[in-house]
Amino acid sequence: MNGTNGVKKQTLNRASEVEHLIDAVKSLIIPFIQAADDAVPSRAAGELLPNKNGVVHNALVESKRPEELVKELALSLPQGEGRGEEGLLQTIQDVLKHSVNTWDQGFMDKLYASTNPVGVISELVLAVLNTNVHVYQVSPALAVIEKHTAKTFASLFGFTGPRAGGVTCQGGSSSNLTSIVIARNTLYPESKLRGNSAAPTGPFVLFTSSHGHYSVEKAAVTCGFGSSSVWTVPVDAKGRMIPSELRRLVQKSLDKGFTPLYVNATAGTTVLGSYDPFEEISAICREFNLWMHIDASWGGPAIFSPTHKHKLAGSHLADSLTVNPHKMLNCPVTCSFLLGPDMGVFHKANTLPAGYLFHSSTPSDVWDLADLTLQCGRRADSLKLALSWIYYGAAGFARQIDTAFDLAAYFADLLQQSGNFVLVSENPPPCLQVCFYYAPGGKLKGTGEGNTEVTREMVERLVQRGYMVDYAPDVSEDSRGSFFRVVVNAQTLRGTVEGLVKGLEVVGREVTRE
Amino acid sequence: MNGTNGVKKQTLNRASEVEHLIDAVKSLIIPFIQAADDAVPSRAAGELLPNKNGVVHNALVESKRPEELVKELALSLPQGEGRGEEGLLQTIQDVLKHSVNTWDQGFMDKLYASTNPVGVISELVLAVLNTNVHVYQVSPALAVIEKHTAKTFASLFGFTGPRAGGVTCQGGSSSNLTSIVIARNTLYPESKLRGNSAAPTGPFVLFTSSHGHYSVEKAAVTCGFGSSSVWTVPVDAKGRMIPSELRRLVQKSLDKGFTPLYVNATAGTTVLGSYDPFEEISAICREFNLWMHIDASWGGPAIFSPTHKHKLAGSHLADSLTVNPHKMLNCPVTCSFLLGPDMGVFHKANTLPAGYLFHSSTPSDVWDLADLTLQCGRRADSLKLALSWIYYGAAGFARQIDTAFDLAAYFADLLQQSGNFVLVSENPPPCLQVCFYYAPGGKLKGTGEGNTEVTREMVERLVQRGYMVDYAPDVSEDSRGSFFRVVVNAQTLRGTVEGLVKGLEVVGREVTRE
Repeated sequence: MNGTNGVKKQTLNRASEVEHLIDAVKSLIIPFIQAADDAVPSRAAGELLPNKNGVVHNALVESKRPEELVKELALSLPQGEGRGEEGLLQTIQDVLKHSVNTWDQGFMDKLYASTNPVGVISELVLAVLNTNVHVYQVSPALAVIEKHTAKTFASLFGFTGPRAGGVTCQGGSSSNLTSIVIARNTLYPESKLRGNSAAPTGPFVLFTSSHGHYSVEKAAVTCGFGSSSVWTVPVDAKGRMIPSELRRLVQKSLDKGFTPLYVNATAGTTVLGSYDPFEEISAICREFNLWMHIDASWGGPAIFSPTHKHKLAGSHLADSLTVNPHKMLNCPVTCSFLLGPDMGVFHKANTLPAGYLFHSSTPSDVWDLADLTLQCGRRADSLKLALSWIYYGAAGFARQIDTAFDLAAYFADLLQQSGNFVLVSENPPPCLQVCFYYAPGGKLKGTGEGNTEVTREMVERLVQRGYMVDYAPDVSEDSRGSFFRVVVNAQTLRGTVEGLVKGLEVVGREVTRE
Repeated sequence: MNGTNGVKKQTLNRASEVEHLIDAVKSLIIPFIQAADDAVPSRAAGELLPNKNGVVHNALVESKRPEELVKELALSLPQGEGRGEEGLLQTIQDVLKHSVNTWDQGFMDKLYASTNPVGVISELVLAVLNTNVHVYQVSPALAVIEKHTAKTFASLFGFTGPRAGGVTCQGGSSSNLTSIVIARNTLYPESKLRGNSAAPTGPFVLFTSSHGHYSVEKAAVTCGFGSSSVWTVPVDAKGRMIPSELRRLVQKSLDKGFTPLYVNATAGTTVLGSYDPFEEISAICREFNLWMHIDASWGGPAIFSPTHKHKLAGSHLADSLTVNPHKMLNCPVTCSFLLGPDMGVFHKANTLPAGYLFHSSTPSDVWDLADLTLQCGRRADSLKLALSWIYYGAAGFARQIDTAFDLAAYFADLLQQSGNFVLVSENPPPCLQVCFYYAPGGKLKGTGEGNTEVTREMVERLVQRGYMVDYAPDVSEDSRGSFFRVVVNAQTLRGTVEGLVKGLEVVGREVTRE
């Protein structure tokens, strides 16, 4: 097209291209979600029911080994010309077909499930904005939203001072790592310049419960402390860190000439969902000048519930706290906040000069948010929590949390009533996962190895019935073998856990031939 | 609703909710992109033109200071009930209104811009899937895609062995950090257990050019080496690391009893876009048994172009390489790959036991991808590159790269022809950014401070005309002050850089009053 000045006129037509592609992709993703909605009766039945056309289909997943799936997908990234819209839509269709449908009620495997409608459109908005929240200049609205959302969220945990707030990191492991770096750089500021050799006596030691997440160990390796720097503190019968044991180990580390640095307490452990006793742990941290972190990646959102927030009593005493709305609150993966009572501390620990990026060197209040983190470029994951919070309100979150906690207790009740299971979790469970063995007649038989084998085989067979659940090793001294870990969430229906109990009993009989 | 069995029947209706919300949000995001499409003539004019209704509007951004914007957004996260769809859509509208429109041709500020239509729908698919690519069990299709895409991408850089491949990390800083951890744990395996004290002689030292990105320093702090462990290697007049200087500094570190560990070479530096001489650097790394990393976050995609790939000659000699398709290839933020010749090395360096997550301890080929990274939960950012690659093909990427490199050269030509600018970049520039001073009559006057002031004021005024460009300090010894850094991308039109030169000349005269 030529303009009036005779020069070739250039135009862009991306708005209509985006609209066209969204519509095309909608015709693939809506049926994907619909299939999960339609599977509700099957999940309540404990087996796959035929649909109205008489076809039996497992909407959750068609399990395939990696080598098979590689063949089936036959992925090819063109060396020459692209395959355009046809290739794009075909690939998306293939990906949907061979993915685990997290919208399916039967997806109870991990500490997250599907997102919800608000989550989907949050990601759509983030994609269109393509904003990088490293400096305010290019991310004005999303920087304001990140600060405001983090500050409001932090206040729920009792971080209420003028400098309280937080940042988002790319997942719980990243938030936990960031907290350790902040701890070291704050308690031993020379380490920012000189590294770990700034430890005044001997090497740094980190403490976490024996049920803590492996991200603390991974962070210890990253930070150059080495995995041996992580001392695990014994837990009580309910899986909670024993404060007197923590105290004993801290004292032992001092006696041996180490530098105790950091305690990771957990709100909602990965396997049992236990909450550590934060007030008692805090007292020990203060006595020995240790950084107290709470990994509330999983169990943190209980703070919204008047009924369950007592589990987080003492959270305001922590120096930092990780919480992942992508788990219990169904925000899309990933959405993880690192919160704390003093962002001045975060800033001082993490800022570095980079004249080509940061144009203000002494901000009264930090608006270039990369300066609070270990990263440079970053997505504005905070928008996902903000939009969800605006849509549902804190009251809506509270109802979701309460419903889910009630459902976990209901599931534990059903298992007990059946008489064919031995609970590993307390009843009611402290969080949203229920751990148990299959034990016909209520008696756990056989060796640890035998139980592991039964659990593993039952888990595999449950997938064929439309339930994906996980299992975990018994890490206690007299191990009874691996047990089931089933996770419910705010979207799980009562019928689903009723159906799962039925399914468990059927596959249990199949596997044990009793 | 009651089923035939008298039990309350539970149903889910999320598919239609998602469809409804996508349509509602579409009516907000499509006009946002359209506004940027419609601004093309203004960007070619160098000033804001009235639209057909006679209204002058700056589609790029309405600049506001943080305190003003906080007031205007008046964000409120409800303590009680949520605001539902009305509140959701109102908030999205406000966010769009107060965000920088990266689709606008005038957004030339950072080493990324908007995504494209394929990028938008990639994020939509990822949101619907809500897949976590930590273990294969829950991410079959996306794990296959991550491995295949990384392996194909790695092969372009010359990593062609059977164990070559890569993983995605959450941005270039994260990829660079991961490479340092892998380097340390591989060259000094005891450090995984014992930390940095495993350094055989003295503390570890990292080398990067004086023009390298600050993420290396940030990673050094994170890793417990401290910022003083980063030794910067002088650059030549074109901003490239001087190999003889590197060799001298490595030798010096040995003489002083340090343990030289890692060299970060850069493909496309942040300010000038320079490519280091990789073959010569590799020879030094081999001589001294150092890990060679290439930070090709920005300049890496030149590998697709037969014309420009020579800039990456020697990339196959590296032990690891970071490349961010979210920059030059317009994938949505973030999409960053860490590639390398041997994934067995990545695995050995990063794996840790976590019985509740990883159920296979001796995989012949790693499919639980978290085990290759510093993280646990992770988004499948690789899908964004895969879909884009399928749509455009390597040939399409090559054309995009060539067009953008040509445009950078065209812009540099225009600046030279004008006679009112002094280029800091070579012409043609090595990459997609053009650096220069405003200098009426072609003579740079005044002090460094004076030039910085002129640059800064012109940058601010350009925003009012619809162009957002950045500036950077001159870090050389006889600093001439801060200069402009303008970044073009594959979507930038010729008219836009022509208009920008016009705009620069107008605001230059205004600011210098000449």
